[in-house]
Amino acid sequence: MFDKKFSYNCSSTDGNSRAGSVSTPHGIFHTPAFMPVGTSGAVKAMMGESLEECGVEIILGNTYHLYLRPGAKLIKEMGGLAKFNSWNKPTLTDSGGFQVFSMQPLSKIDDDGVTFRSHHDGSEHRFFAERVIEIQRDIGADIIMSFDQCVPYPAEEKLASEGVRRTYDWAKKGQAHFKKLENESPTGITLFGIVQGSTYPDLRKMSAEQIVSLSFEGNAIGGLAVGESKKEMEDTLAHTTGFLPEDKPRYLMGVGYPEDILMAVSYGIDMFDCVLPTRNARTGMVFTSEGPLIFRNAEFSKDERPLDINCKCRVCQRYSRAYIRHLYNQGEITAMMLTSYHSIYFYQHLMRGIRAAIANKSFSVFRKEFLEKYRQD
Amino acid sequence: MFDKKFSYNCSSTDGNSRAGSVSTPHGIFHTPAFMPVGTSGAVKAMMGESLEECGVEIILGNTYHLYLRPGAKLIKEMGGLAKFNSWNKPTLTDSGGFQVFSMQPLSKIDDDGVTFRSHHDGSEHRFFAERVIEIQRDIGADIIMSFDQCVPYPAEEKLASEGVRRTYDWAKKGQAHFKKLENESPTGITLFGIVQGSTYPDLRKMSAEQIVSLSFEGNAIGGLAVGESKKEMEDTLAHTTGFLPEDKPRYLMGVGYPEDILMAVSYGIDMFDCVLPTRNARTGMVFTSEGPLIFRNAEFSKDERPLDINCKCRVCQRYSRAYIRHLYNQGEITAMMLTSYHSIYFYQHLMRGIRAAIANKSFSVFRKEFLEKYRQD
Repeated sequence: MFDKKFSYNCSSTDGNSRAGSVSTPHGIFHTPAFMPVGTSGAVKAMMGESLEECGVEIILGNTYHLYLRPGAKLIKEMGGLAKFNSWNKPTLTDSGGFQVFSMQPLSKIDDDGVTFRSHHDGSEHRFFAERVIEIQRDIGADIIMSFDQCVPYPAEEKLASEGVRRTYDWAKKGQAHFKKLENESPTGITLFGIVQGSTYPDLRKMSAEQIVSLSFEGNAIGGLAVGESKKEMEDTLAHTTGFLPEDKPRYLMGVGYPEDILMAVSYGIDMFDCVLPTRNARTGMVFTSEGPLIFRNAEFSKDERPLDINCKCRVCQRYSRAYIRHLYNQGEITAMMLTSYHSIYFYQHLMRGIRAAIANKSFSVFRKEFLEKYRQD
Repeated sequence: MFDKKFSYNCSSTDGNSRAGSVSTPHGIFHTPAFMPVGTSGAVKAMMGESLEECGVEIILGNTYHLYLRPGAKLIKEMGGLAKFNSWNKPTLTDSGGFQVFSMQPLSKIDDDGVTFRSHHDGSEHRFFAERVIEIQRDIGADIIMSFDQCVPYPAEEKLASEGVRRTYDWAKKGQAHFKKLENESPTGITLFGIVQGSTYPDLRKMSAEQIVSLSFEGNAIGGLAVGESKKEMEDTLAHTTGFLPEDKPRYLMGVGYPEDILMAVSYGIDMFDCVLPTRNARTGMVFTSEGPLIFRNAEFSKDERPLDINCKCRVCQRYSRAYIRHLYNQGEITAMMLTSYHSIYFYQHLMRGIRAAIANKSFSVFRKEFLEKYRQD
C-alpha cells in the first residue's frame, strides 16, 4: 500500500514563488496547494465527489477531533483516514496542538505536553510529542505534523520563547519516536516540522534554524493568522521563509484569505489550509472574483445572478443568489452545500491560476490583476 | 413557456396497477411516480443535480412554506418555482391545507377557510379556496391542488362529514376562480381535486363522487397516512380508488413507506409524495432493499459495507456505514447529504422497478419478491 515514497518536485519558479508537486503514498498533489479542512474526516457540507470536481487534491483532518471521535484506533482498523473516508487521495493531519492550546484555560500545559478535556464529554486526555505521533500514525494520513506549541497573539516574548523551546524539544522527541516506529513498522507516512516564534524575528530565526536542523521532509510555519495584522503576518513570513530550505515543501498553517495566499506564494510557500471557504459559506459569505459576497443580505433577494458572475463552477452555472439567499435564510442544508461547493471551487481555481502563472513567469501580474478585481471591504 | 398542455397517458396495466406518463409544461414524468418533498423550494440536503442523478422527475413544494418565505409574489417575479429553484422540470404544490390544519389550535377554521399564524413571526394570515389558487398560480408549479380540509385521525363522523362538505365547497369555489383566472391570463397550470372522508366508506364515496363530478385533470386522495392502521389505509384506499376515473392520474398524498406504495400501486395509484426518505435520512434511518437501517446504531461503527449492499447509487458505491455513522454522530452535514441521497435513490429505484414490472405484467411478483427481502421491523 505504501510503496510510493514522499518527494517534492519543483517544476518552475518565478521570483521566490514556485510551482511543483508532492508525491505521497496516496498520490500526488500540485503546489502551491490549498487543502480544505475535513475536521472530522469530511469537509463540511461536501461529498468526496464534489471535492474532486472542484480539483481538490489533498484534504486535512484534525487530529484533535479524529482522536476523540471516532478514535485513532478505529480509523487504523478501517485502513487509515483516506480509506475510512473514501477519499483515497492524499491527506494531512495537523498535530492537534492548535486545538488543545486554544482551549485554555481548560488545558494545562507543561514542558512535556498538554492535559485537556474532551469537548464532547469532559473526559481528561493528554497530548505529548510521542503520543501525538502515535495517534497520527494510527489515523494514517500521508503527511503528519510535529507536536508544537502555538501561542496566542499578542504573546509576551517570554511566552513566545517558551513556545519555541518546547516546539523544538517536542520536534526532537517526536521525530526520534517516529523514526523508531517507522523502523519497527514502516508506513510510508511523512513527518513535517513546525516553526513557531510569534511575531519576534529573533525567535522565528531561532525556531526555523532549530527545526531545519532536524531535516524533516517538509517545514511548516505555525502561529500565524492568529490575530496579528496583515503587515505583521507578511513581515514574519518573509523573514521566516528565508531560513527554510528550497528543496522541501513549505507549509503555512491556517492561512487564509485569497490575498494572504497570494502574498505567501510570493515568498515561496507551497501549502495552505484554512476553514475560511467552508466556514464562511455556512455563515453567510462566499468568496468571489469580485471579493467576499455576503449573500444573505436583503439586497440579493431578487438577484438572478450567480454567486460569482465569473465562475464556471456547477453552482454558479445553475443557481441564483436569490434562491441561495432564500434557502440560507430558511436554514436549508442545501444552501450550505451550494455555497461551500462554490467557495471550495473558487479556492481551487485560484490555486490553479497561481500555478499556471508561476509556470508562465507571470505570477506578479496574475496577483495584481486578481487583486484589482477582488475588493476587500 | 406554457405551450405544452397537461395530459396523462397510460401505457400499460397489470391488474389494477398501471404505468404511464404525465405531460406538463415543464416536461413529462413517468408514473407511478414518487415526488420528493422540497418544502421551501429545495429537497433537503440535496442539490438539483443529485435529484436528477437519482432519476427524480418531479418535486413537490409546500405552499404554506413558500407563501410565507420567500413569498409567492417573489417566486412569480423570479419566473415561477421551477425557474426560481433551477429545477426546470415538473413541480407540484400542495394546497397548504395539511400544514395549516395541523397547526390547530393556533388555526381557526370556519366554512370559508382558515386563519392561522406564521411559525416564523406569529403574523396572522388567511387561506381560503380562491386565495390558495391565487397563491399557487403565483408560485407557478405545473400541478396545483384544491384547498381541502384534512381532518386528524381518529375523527368523529360529524367532523369528517364537515370536512367532506367544506372540501367540496372549496373545490367548486377554487375551480371556478381558477377557470376565471386562466381565462384572463392562461398559465398552463393544471388543478387537481382532493377527496377526503377520513376512514368512513360512505363519506369517501360521497367525497369521491363530488370531486369527480367537477372533472379535474387529476384526483388526489387526501387524509390518509395520518395515523390510521395499515389495514384502514388499505381498505379506505381500495374503496376510494374505485370511484376515481381511469383516464386521469390518481395521487395518494403524503404516502409513504415502500410497502404502502406497493400496496397503493396495486389499486391503481399513480403519484405519491412523502418526506420519509429525506426526513428519516436526517434523523438516523435509511431505506434499503433489506428494510429500514438505523445506521446510527453502535453495531455499525466498524461496518465497512455500504448502507444498502444491493444498491447501485453513488453513495453505496463509495461510502461505508462506519464512516456515515461516524459523520452522523458528529452532526456533520455531509452525513445527511449521503443518507438523503441514498434514500432518494432507493425510492426512485423502487419506482423504476414498479413501472418496469407493470410493463412486464409482473407487478405482483415484483411486489412479493421486494417484500420478502424487505424486513419491516
